[in-house]
Amino acid sequence: MSWGVDNLPYGVFSRQGEPPRVGVRYGDKVLDLAAALHDEVFAAPSLNPFMARGRTAWHDTRVLIQNKLTGDSSVTESHLIPLDQVRLHMPFEVADYVDFYCSLDHASNIGRIFRPDSEPLLPNWRHLPVGYHGRSGTVVVSGTPVRRPHGQLRAGVYGPCAKLDIEAELGFVVGVPSELGSPAGAFEDHVFGVTLVNDWSARDIQAWEYVPLGPFLGKSFATSVSPWVTPLEALPRIPGRPQDPAPLDYLRRQSDWGLDIAVEVVLNGEVISRPPYPSMYWTPDQMLAHMTVNGASLRTGDLFASGTISGPESDERGSLIELTWNGADPIKLPGGDTRTFLQDGDTVTIRATAGTLTLGEVTGKIV
Amino acid sequence: MSWGVDNLPYGVFSRQGEPPRVGVRYGDKVLDLAAALHDEVFAAPSLNPFMARGRTAWHDTRVLIQNKLTGDSSVTESHLIPLDQVRLHMPFEVADYVDFYCSLDHASNIGRIFRPDSEPLLPNWRHLPVGYHGRSGTVVVSGTPVRRPHGQLRAGVYGPCAKLDIEAELGFVVGVPSELGSPAGAFEDHVFGVTLVNDWSARDIQAWEYVPLGPFLGKSFATSVSPWVTPLEALPRIPGRPQDPAPLDYLRRQSDWGLDIAVEVVLNGEVISRPPYPSMYWTPDQMLAHMTVNGASLRTGDLFASGTISGPESDERGSLIELTWNGADPIKLPGGDTRTFLQDGDTVTIRATAGTLTLGEVTGKIV
Repeated sequence: MSWGVDNLPYGVFSRQGEPPRVGVRYGDKVLDLAAALHDEVFAAPSLNPFMARGRTAWHDTRVLIQNKLTGDSSVTESHLIPLDQVRLHMPFEVADYVDFYCSLDHASNIGRIFRPDSEPLLPNWRHLPVGYHGRSGTVVVSGTPVRRPHGQLRAGVYGPCAKLDIEAELGFVVGVPSELGSPAGAFEDHVFGVTLVNDWSARDIQAWEYVPLGPFLGKSFATSVSPWVTPLEALPRIPGRPQDPAPLDYLRRQSDWGLDIAVEVVLNGEVISRPPYPSMYWTPDQMLAHMTVNGASLRTGDLFASGTISGPESDERGSLIELTWNGADPIKLPGGDTRTFLQDGDTVTIRATAGTLTLGEVTGKIV
Repeated sequence: MSWGVDNLPYGVFSRQGEPPRVGVRYGDKVLDLAAALHDEVFAAPSLNPFMARGRTAWHDTRVLIQNKLTGDSSVTESHLIPLDQVRLHMPFEVADYVDFYCSLDHASNIGRIFRPDSEPLLPNWRHLPVGYHGRSGTVVVSGTPVRRPHGQLRAGVYGPCAKLDIEAELGFVVGVPSELGSPAGAFEDHVFGVTLVNDWSARDIQAWEYVPLGPFLGKSFATSVSPWVTPLEALPRIPGRPQDPAPLDYLRRQSDWGLDIAVEVVLNGEVISRPPYPSMYWTPDQMLAHMTVNGASLRTGDLFASGTISGPESDERGSLIELTWNGADPIKLPGGDTRTFLQDGDTVTIRATAGTLTLGEVTGKIV
């Protein structure tokens, strides 16, 4: 099955009248871990205390759960709760949220749209994974409605965003902190797992505000994540995309952290794009190395995202600004409707598979 | 005295072998509030729980403390601990950290340095307070040593930052949260007080990385704050600087939130600059209104800073890049030494007064 013992993503759930606690998804049920494993770390309303335990504990717990689920299951069965009886919550407390810009195709498309007469890529792009800090306080769990932001659209003009967009991304969740003043250690010693991210974007607000200090209100109104965090250990890995020029030593890849993940962007029930994660230029281990090379410390709950995932083909782009070429070329929906950017009432779902595994999906409706 | 009953900034202190808790500074002592007021909210290791109580509680507590300190003091005296017997800690848990760019003189200087042939101010600057999110996990308390960051200085070059700089700023600490999806209410209903901020900056790393998503590793290695948070209620207020063009309605000033604060930047014991806060263009109420106009929510512990405070005169600039014009014009120190940017072993202190009040100072030594 697609949510079997080779998957087992972690989330936070509650039953009516009970406090939120940690579970893993198994089929169409959630395993109540505090009850099944008799471990109070799972009675917390977030994954953070468990994630802080580190890599050995992550592995041992995964094996323990797999054994419980595949062994004599009369006891375990009583701790499996049907998903339709639970509410899913934000799975972790976000410490810092960083958003990268790791897709060569996305960065090139954005360059062509905004600077049609120049080189699409800025001079630094192939030398480092460009990134910035986002607002961690407005990271919300899948299903949270997204209110169309108001703001300053250009000089002297205030109003509702007219270019509301999505960005389909993969997010990496940090479990183990690092010390201030030193670069982090190995990727797999710090990063617990992955989540799907929709980095909602108000393109008009962003275009007016973003020089010289980067995106701010064009992004900070909401960032949605999937309710299930898939452990790194479950993910099929492949070599990263070749890089030219060769990166500096501190960005050198030590092992294969390309991820074999296929993404789908769904608008009102119709697939509008299929971004391929293997096309990403910078790999997640390189993001982590870069983010901490200056001695910046990690905390449990740090979230860093890949940036929009776009492939080379026109139906592999992870944002509407690319799919519609900044509105010039609307996409056609079944039934004859078209879209440039999002309308009120639209629902966007980002879902993904990693080999035979299903990842949690992230959904939001514009209100 | 300069730390009298009209001042009373809050901080977090500990005595050897005891857990950190909240106190207020009075003279050269700290009043142990949990003991003096019999209120467990002050037994927390951060100001956050108290700040979350809101404006009425802030005022009532201040009056209560003032009465205790000016009344029959035999009991209160026993709860006053000499500062040399305590260690000062980070006074609050930082939720999100936002840094603005509110000084007309600073933004103009930076524009002249980096774009000598263009208009110093970018087109959006007079229309909105430009800002970006920084790394909240690396906000540290005054006295924490600052390790010179390493990183990518330009294409293919990794090494220690050669242009390590300071930015003298004022920070605003949020006490009362706001709802996701709606702009925040009145400034004084949300903001608890102010702290001094040194936004350490690696100018070479920043210059190479910052397009198009803004500063990242050039700032994220450390941001220092003073150990004392001065309540808004204590601060002398003045009208803000005139603004042209008139700001949009959502940025309209509702009352006087200009602050009469005089700042000094001290390098190895010598005052090298005296930035005047009244010269700031955008006022803190406007920063808050802008930051939340898109529906971004506030959390207790959010910190937003003014950006570098620079006045119109050459000895009123709040960063070395301005004081030395990007290194072209070194400053002379007593004893014949000169500086362009910071050297290892340098100590920088930012201190300030607000009328007759002293604000806490923020210090850091480069290691």
